[in-house]
Amino acid sequence: MSTAVQADDLPTGYRYAGVTCGIKKSGRPDLALIVSDRPAVAAAVYTTNQVVAAPVVLSRSRTPSANVRAVVINSGNANACTGEQGDRDAAQMTQWAADAIDADVQSVLVMSTGIIGHPMPMAKIQSGVTAAGDVLSHGADGFQAAADAILTTDQGRKVAAVDFKIGTHRYRIVGMAKGAGMIAPNMATMLATITTDAPLTTADAQQSLSVACDRSFNRVSVDGHTSTNDTVVLLAANEAETLSGDDFAAFQAALESLCIQLAKQLPADGEGALRIMHLSVRGAQSTDDAEQIARVVCASPLVKTAITGGDPNWGRIVSAAGYAGPKIEVNKTCLSILGQAVFEAGQPLKFDAAALSKAMKDSKSVKLDLTVGSGSGEAEFWASDLTNAYVDFNSLYTT
Amino acid sequence: MSTAVQADDLPTGYRYAGVTCGIKKSGRPDLALIVSDRPAVAAAVYTTNQVVAAPVVLSRSRTPSANVRAVVINSGNANACTGEQGDRDAAQMTQWAADAIDADVQSVLVMSTGIIGHPMPMAKIQSGVTAAGDVLSHGADGFQAAADAILTTDQGRKVAAVDFKIGTHRYRIVGMAKGAGMIAPNMATMLATITTDAPLTTADAQQSLSVACDRSFNRVSVDGHTSTNDTVVLLAANEAETLSGDDFAAFQAALESLCIQLAKQLPADGEGALRIMHLSVRGAQSTDDAEQIARVVCASPLVKTAITGGDPNWGRIVSAAGYAGPKIEVNKTCLSILGQAVFEAGQPLKFDAAALSKAMKDSKSVKLDLTVGSGSGEAEFWASDLTNAYVDFNSLYTT
Repeated sequence: MSTAVQADDLPTGYRYAGVTCGIKKSGRPDLALIVSDRPAVAAAVYTTNQVVAAPVVLSRSRTPSANVRAVVINSGNANACTGEQGDRDAAQMTQWAADAIDADVQSVLVMSTGIIGHPMPMAKIQSGVTAAGDVLSHGADGFQAAADAILTTDQGRKVAAVDFKIGTHRYRIVGMAKGAGMIAPNMATMLATITTDAPLTTADAQQSLSVACDRSFNRVSVDGHTSTNDTVVLLAANEAETLSGDDFAAFQAALESLCIQLAKQLPADGEGALRIMHLSVRGAQSTDDAEQIARVVCASPLVKTAITGGDPNWGRIVSAAGYAGPKIEVNKTCLSILGQAVFEAGQPLKFDAAALSKAMKDSKSVKLDLTVGSGSGEAEFWASDLTNAYVDFNSLYTT
Repeated sequence: MSTAVQADDLPTGYRYAGVTCGIKKSGRPDLALIVSDRPAVAAAVYTTNQVVAAPVVLSRSRTPSANVRAVVINSGNANACTGEQGDRDAAQMTQWAADAIDADVQSVLVMSTGIIGHPMPMAKIQSGVTAAGDVLSHGADGFQAAADAILTTDQGRKVAAVDFKIGTHRYRIVGMAKGAGMIAPNMATMLATITTDAPLTTADAQQSLSVACDRSFNRVSVDGHTSTNDTVVLLAANEAETLSGDDFAAFQAALESLCIQLAKQLPADGEGALRIMHLSVRGAQSTDDAEQIARVVCASPLVKTAITGGDPNWGRIVSAAGYAGPKIEVNKTCLSILGQAVFEAGQPLKFDAAALSKAMKDSKSVKLDLTVGSGSGEAEFWASDLTNAYVDFNSLYTT
């Protein structure tokens, strides 16, 4: 898990800032500003929840775009279920950010995360946006500060960087994310901002981000909730000559790699998570079927608690696949846990359960390989386990 | 919650037995036999899991039927994922039961519940079936003994009784169930046997049981798992003159009432459950939509832990409805918790959160009324909460 990027990882043309403006009672950083020096191409993927927060409504109306200058993000208050005042507050945040960098308000996007149903503390946010505008930096320090300011119950910063070459030119992609609880397929309370100096058309940026999210953020699970605020934004260079053909494919592969690196950090830092499971489903009748099976297995509290306990409980995993919905071939169903075959052709195998349990307990990531038939459908999923700490966190504290 | 039926509750014509034959290491009762004195009409509803246990395969092949004499049930071993030997063992169980009551093997149904992937201890089962045959009783003691012998991790016996009159004739329906963990919509590890002296056609019995299960056992949730073994069997009198018209409607209403009484006992006794939530969804565009919304809200670990913590967290409940799938009208969405309105027309209301939290903590059943629009779709759901005890139970012990 990356906790820092280096100056050399950063794409050219972007500045970052993260400050503390008092939204969080904890006194931790809570306002980030990400600025493109020139008008950037912007693509975005938003929550599929029908209950959406004001910043999602506003940002959705401004993307995709070929002319975005900034993203302003606050943590500590989600500006969700806040009515028309919330809509006005989201718009006001983008106005202040636009003022801070001398840009048009329509070129600013906004994200919020935190408690829902509470009015935004706008005086604090105004001071935060102004302060962030004053400390914008092209360097890694600014990037790290922004990445810290978007966190909520996360235990640590979530960043990743990749690069790829076209001819001798090196392009860079970096991303920052926040996650922790309520993370699920179709994106739960998670925010991410990805910046690249690769030049893209608006349509290509949107298409590549959507595909990358489907294969990364939509394949991780903490507790199955999809939040009111989830947003992933990609900012790319806006140039006359854009990547195409093999060059675009190279970008797509790099973007997917980056998104998977970010996404895997979410369940690892799920509220109270002890270890993650990494599930590969193969042999399904289609990719959609494989995804659905993986999603249901990873959402199962019985499977999650087995991972928590280091219990090689093939019965819970196989039976979850059996009720997931898609057709499976039971007599061709096989399961391995950390490479140890435990179920084959619909029957349990003899194995050293004590040794496998110990290996599971010694692992931060438990790999599960589940074959459900002879089809070509495959999917990878990453999920947190389910611990007493999760229950305590979510039953003792309101969110 | 009923824990006993009286002699007067029992329909005429059935005998019951429950014995201990050593399948369970605990030494608790583990074999039940339910016998109809005359060939009975039998209907059944089975798990929708594609991974099904041997007894489900066998019983499914013998229902619906107009000629069932007995149901033999063991707890402690599910005879699931046991291959061809499991199929032979299930058939052998029905043969021994048939021998014990001098009936045809095809007239015997079988259910099993307990650990999966282990061969059945057939010598113990043979002695148990013989012993049960010797103590069959028309009385409440026999019924109670059978109801005890089907339990696994249940904390208590689950029985219910209803009656209805047609003219001056009183008909009776009684049922016994086992539940605890892995209970979900579409029936997880739960078994139930219902007996009635009401006369039904085979087709009417099957139709009425299917409808009653949809509105009861399929509307409770512990952990969302659907097991390999779930079975509900209804035995009814086989007479030349059967109930029809208003008389059949009276039976249907009584059967549904009985099934709901049994079903509600399942989440209340969910593994580690502290309290249950009783969710009424109204205003959906269809009954299916209301059910789907209720199912997703009740499966949410964030909602469950809020109930555990006595947290009137409308945000988790409303956002779960928002990602459930069916269309909702956010600006007409309202939520009450224990009768206290907390969210109305898409906006949070002011309320005394401390008082409501105390009321939730003082309740064994927390009523949630959720309106999601102006449609006519409605559904009731009952679900357990999610506690440390659940996590401990399922992470520290294999099942």
